Amino acid sequence: MMTWEVLSMIGTVAFAISGAFIAMEEEYDIFGVYILGIVTAFGGGAIRNLLIGLPVSALWEQGMFFNLALMSITIVFLFPGNLLKHWQRWGNFFDAIGLAAFAIQGAIYATNMGHPISAVIVAAVLTGSGGGIIRDLLAGRKPLVLKAEIYAVWAVLAGLVIGLGMANKAVELYGLFAVITALRVMSYTYKWHLPVRKLGVH
Amino acid sequence: MMTWEVLSMIGTVAFAISGAFIAMEEEYDIFGVYILGIVTAFGGGAIRNLLIGLPVSALWEQGMFFNLALMSITIVFLFPGNLLKHWQRWGNFFDAIGLAAFAIQGAIYATNMGHPISAVIVAAVLTGSGGGIIRDLLAGRKPLVLKAEIYAVWAVLAGLVIGLGMANKAVELYGLFAVITALRVMSYTYKWHLPVRKLGVH
Amino acid sequence: MMTWEVLSMIGTVAFAISGAFIAMEEEYDIFGVYILGIVTAFGGGAIRNLLIGLPVSALWEQGMFFNLALMSITIVFLFPGNLLKHWQRWGNFFDAIGLAAFAIQGAIYATNMGHPISAVIVAAVLTGSGGGIIRDLLAGRKPLVLKAEIYAVWAVLAGLVIGLGMANKAVELYGLFAVITALRVMSYTYKWHLPVRKLGVH
Repeated sequence: MMTWEVLSMIGTVAFAISGAFIAMEEEYDIFGVYILGIVTAFGGGAIRNLLIGLPVSALWEQGMFFNLALMSITIVFLFPGNLLKHWQRWGNFFDAIGLAAFAIQGAIYATNMGHPISAVIVAAVLTGSGGGIIRDLLAGRKPLVLKAEIYAVWAVLAGLVIGLGMANKAVELYGLFAVITALRVMSYTYKWHLPVRKLGVH
Repeated sequence: MMTWEVLSMIGTVAFAISGAFIAMEEEYDIFGVYILGIVTAFGGGAIRNLLIGLPVSALWEQGMFFNLALMSITIVFLFPGNLLKHWQRWGNFFDAIGLAAFAIQGAIYATNMGHPISAVIVAAVLTGSGGGIIRDLLAGRKPLVLKAEIYAVWAVLAGLVIGLGMANKAVELYGLFAVITALRVMSYTYKWHLPVRKLGVH
Repeated sequence: MMTWEVLSMIGTVAFAISGAFIAMEEEYDIFGVYILGIVTAFGGGAIRNLLIGLPVSALWEQGMFFNLALMSITIVFLFPGNLLKHWQRWGNFFDAIGLAAFAIQGAIYATNMGHPISAVIVAAVLTGSGGGIIRDLLAGRKPLVLKAEIYAVWAVLAGLVIGLGMANKAVELYGLFAVITALRVMSYTYKWHLPVRKLGVH
C-alpha cells in the first residue's frame, strides 16, 4: 500500500471521529452524528478536487474509505461513557491527526500532478483544513482554522517540505506526519499564537 | 412528461416557497427573498451535480424551472397577510414536500446513471437536503437536517426503495412521494426523535 | 491589457482588502487575515466557475492575481493604526468597488462565452457577491447581500447593461464601473432600502 493511501486512511478515520465528537457535543441525533462525521472526513478532499478540477466523485470510488468512516463513527457513538469524559482533549487530538495526514496527502497529490510549489501549498492547506471548516460551519461555530492557536501554518509547512522535495521516502513522510501532528498538539496545549492586529470598535 | 420531471417541478416550487418564507421571517428585502428562494430551490441539485461530476450548469438548461421558482416566490411575496399567519406550519410543510420530491428525483437520477445502491442513497440524501442546508446556513441557522426531528432518514428510505428497484412505475413513484412527505410531516408534528448520545460539558 | 483584466485586478485587490479588514475586526491572527482576504478575493470567481462548468483552477493560472491579493493584505496588516480608525467606512467602500468590478467582469465573461442574458445576469450577481458571501459565512456573520441596504440589485443592473450590449468600449465599461460603485456607496450612506414583507412571530 502506498504511503499516501495509508495517510488518507488515517486522516479519514481521525476526521470522522472529530466530526462525530462535535455532533455529540451539539446533541445531534444518531443520524446527524453520521452526517457530520462523513462530511468532516470527506470535505477537505472534496474542496481540493473541486478547486484543482478533478471530479469529486473520485473520492467515492474506493468504497473502503467510506466504510472506514462509518465504522469509526459507530465505535465513537457506542463508546463507554466514562472513556468519553475527556472527549474535548481527544476531539482536538484527532483533529490534529487529520490535519497532518490530509495536509501531507494533499501535498503529495498535487506534487504527483506536476503542480508548482505554490499550488502544492494551497492543496496542503485546503485538504488539511477543508473538512474541519465545513464541520464547524454546519455546527454553527467559527472555523477553528481562523481563530485558534496556530493551525493552518502547519499545513503550509507540510506543503513546503514536500513541494521542495525534502521528504520523499515512506519513512520521511511518516516522520513529517508525526512532527506536524506534534506541532499542532503543542500549539493548542501551550496556546501558541501568531500576532493579532486588533481594530478598535468605533 | 417523465415522472422525475414532475417531481423536479414539485420540489423546485416547494423549496422556492420554503426559502422565501424563511427570508421573510428574517426580514430580508424583496431581493433577498428571491435570492434565498432560488438558492433553496437549486442548491440540492447543484451539490449533487458537483459531487457526481456533472456540470452544475445543466441545472439552468431548462429555463422553465427557473421561471417556476420565480413565479412561486412572487406569489408568496404578494400573498394576503391573513393567509400567511400560519407560515411556520406551511414553511415546514413545503420543506417536507421538497425533501420527498428531490430525494426521489435524485435517486432516480443516480439509478439511471448506473450507480450502485450506496451512491443512489447518497444522491437521495444530498439532493433532498442540500438546498435546505444552504438555505439555513445563509440565514444564519443551524441546518434543520442536523438537529430536527427525523429528517434525512426519510431521504435514505427513498434512496433504498428506488435503489432496490422496489418502485419503478409512475404510480409507485408518486405513492412513494406521498409516503415520504407524510412520514416527514408526522416526524415534526409528533416530534419523533432518533437516539441522542449526549456528552457532558466539562 | 484588456478592460476585464483591469477590472479583475481592481476587484481582487478591493475584496482582498475587505476580507482582511473583517478578519482584523474579528481579531483573527495574521494567518487568518491572509486566509479570509484570499477567500474573499477569489470566492466569487470560484463559485461562478463551478456553476458555469469551468474548472476553478483556471483562477490560479495567472499567478499575478494571487500575488496582488497577498500584497494588498500585507499592506492593510502593516498600515499605521491612526489611518485605520475609519476602517468600517473603508471596509464598506472596498466591498463596493469589488462588487462593481467583479459584477461587470463576470457579465463580460458570460457574454463572451455566448450565454443568454439571464445567464449573464446570474454570472454578474454570483461573481460580484460570491466572495463577500463566503467571507461573511466564515466570519460567522449574516451575508451582507441578504440583509443590507440595496446590494445585489446593482450587480443585476451591471449584468443587464452588458447583456443588452449597452456598454462595450473600454470607456463605457469604466464608466459603468464608476456608476455601479457610486450607487452602492450611496445605498449604504443614505440607507436606501427595498420593500420588506414582514411575517409576525406567532
